[in-house]
Amino acid sequence: MAAPLFERLTIIGCGLIGSSIARAARRHGLAGEIIVADLSKQVRERAAALNLADRITADIAEGVAGADLVIFAVPVLAMEAAMIAAAAHLRPGAIITDVGSVKGSVTDALTAAAPSDVFVIPGHPIAGTEHSGPDAGFAELFEGRWTILTPLVSDDPDHAEALARLTAFWLALGAQVEVMDAAHHDLVLAVTSHLPHLIAYNIVGTAADLEGVTEGEVMKYAAGGFRDFTRIAASDPTMWRDIFVANREAVLEVLGRFTEDLQALQRAIRWGEADRLHSLFTRTREIRRGVIDLGQDSPESNFGRDRGRH
Amino acid sequence: MAAPLFERLTIIGCGLIGSSIARAARRHGLAGEIIVADLSKQVRERAAALNLADRITADIAEGVAGADLVIFAVPVLAMEAAMIAAAAHLRPGAIITDVGSVKGSVTDALTAAAPSDVFVIPGHPIAGTEHSGPDAGFAELFEGRWTILTPLVSDDPDHAEALARLTAFWLALGAQVEVMDAAHHDLVLAVTSHLPHLIAYNIVGTAADLEGVTEGEVMKYAAGGFRDFTRIAASDPTMWRDIFVANREAVLEVLGRFTEDLQALQRAIRWGEADRLHSLFTRTREIRRGVIDLGQDSPESNFGRDRGRH
Repeated sequence: MAAPLFERLTIIGCGLIGSSIARAARRHGLAGEIIVADLSKQVRERAAALNLADRITADIAEGVAGADLVIFAVPVLAMEAAMIAAAAHLRPGAIITDVGSVKGSVTDALTAAAPSDVFVIPGHPIAGTEHSGPDAGFAELFEGRWTILTPLVSDDPDHAEALARLTAFWLALGAQVEVMDAAHHDLVLAVTSHLPHLIAYNIVGTAADLEGVTEGEVMKYAAGGFRDFTRIAASDPTMWRDIFVANREAVLEVLGRFTEDLQALQRAIRWGEADRLHSLFTRTREIRRGVIDLGQDSPESNFGRDRGRH
Repeated sequence: MAAPLFERLTIIGCGLIGSSIARAARRHGLAGEIIVADLSKQVRERAAALNLADRITADIAEGVAGADLVIFAVPVLAMEAAMIAAAAHLRPGAIITDVGSVKGSVTDALTAAAPSDVFVIPGHPIAGTEHSGPDAGFAELFEGRWTILTPLVSDDPDHAEALARLTAFWLALGAQVEVMDAAHHDLVLAVTSHLPHLIAYNIVGTAADLEGVTEGEVMKYAAGGFRDFTRIAASDPTMWRDIFVANREAVLEVLGRFTEDLQALQRAIRWGEADRLHSLFTRTREIRRGVIDLGQDSPESNFGRDRGRH
């Protein structure tokens, strides 16, 4: 039997993503030992009941000791404190990564506190559901999904080797891996993920406040399109608050463009410019078909996939 | 064997909805004879190949002759012309309905041209997918979905009986039926369906135009939330153009509120008002959970359900 990729894997934060990594790493035999560290007693108790790790601790310092792979899986704004708690106890040569949805600010937070003898390689698996917590995770979450790694520029061959090992880890979880710089990641994700979530949160709030239409009615007739938005707008509030604070600039940039385009559309509706509407709607349909033709569409999204007790 | 609910059902327009009604009416034995009328040769050929009706015609006048139930299933702005073509040939006492997503303007269009000896009862099944055409339909489309009927005010007992027969028809297709007035329907649908589609069309357009991010990248990383929007934005362009033109006032009203709320959210992001963001996101999550607790959420949407060759 081949030796596992890593001797000791420590996952800090055992929510949807952290617990999914723990499950998948165990299933695929990727680590000799799996440690989970989480500050929440409730989360630790669930993680223990679900038997997600070989050891579960509240103490980040103790958790990371001796680990050759440490994955920070906490909300984006909690990364810095977690790294500060871990830094002095990291094993020299360890690979340090994260799963945060924003890479610029997280890279700064991780590298500022990290010792110089570890390899910090920020990352982001583009995978999730609208559910949260250790019960919501599942080992297949990353299969067929992209994980983006945003390594710091380095011509150190040891750094390149660390990147190769971390890439192998994600591939073993079933993910595809892409490397890009952090700023580009943050712009791409602002438009493909952060703006859609912001819009979904907003529309659900607008609908709930509409006089003359009850919340019950809004939900009763949600099959006309609204339901997809309510699902997205049910995503973890803390995670998303952090994302909008941490990726403020890119989000404001794409939001500005979205609003500009929406105003043009509003004007076309007000003036009954039917051709303009038809031409935009035809174009967006073709974009969708382009995706399908490229074979990059999966038959079902993980959104709506209910694996937990929620 | 019980007699079917209607002797002769004529469906005008054989797209996703019309063809689904034809399939479901036949499966449940709801009409002695099913006629489909469609102006498109291509659609008629597909309808014939799929054996969707007992008779398929290009001639609306011929199609409606003798029918005791006529369902207009054409885009909203095409209703008036279809009714004008049909009017002189409608059987006295026939029930006339439609499936349009806007009820105020469609009611006006249908009643203006209809003879006085038929029962016009506008309707709208809240069901659909992002696909179009006769191949995209399926008999189960209406099962567990709501159909809203917006009958004209009348104390005529024959009108009440016609409403009861039409209600029985939709129930037999597996739908639940709700009665409300047309203006209320148009406001409820503006927020639960028309605004979500407008937003989805807009965001897909914004993303496609973003410099520095390619269309391929947008689609590659769509699993972060964007994919649901591309699916909605792939809906039929003609149908949706007509909806925004026909329901302009209600759409502009809810769009105005949406934009106002979005500006407040934008400001909260700009100023890093984390608590305000967290509190909105918590509230929208609770709204979603409210739906699930009410048991009004279906495990899967029909969006994304691919039944055709598309």
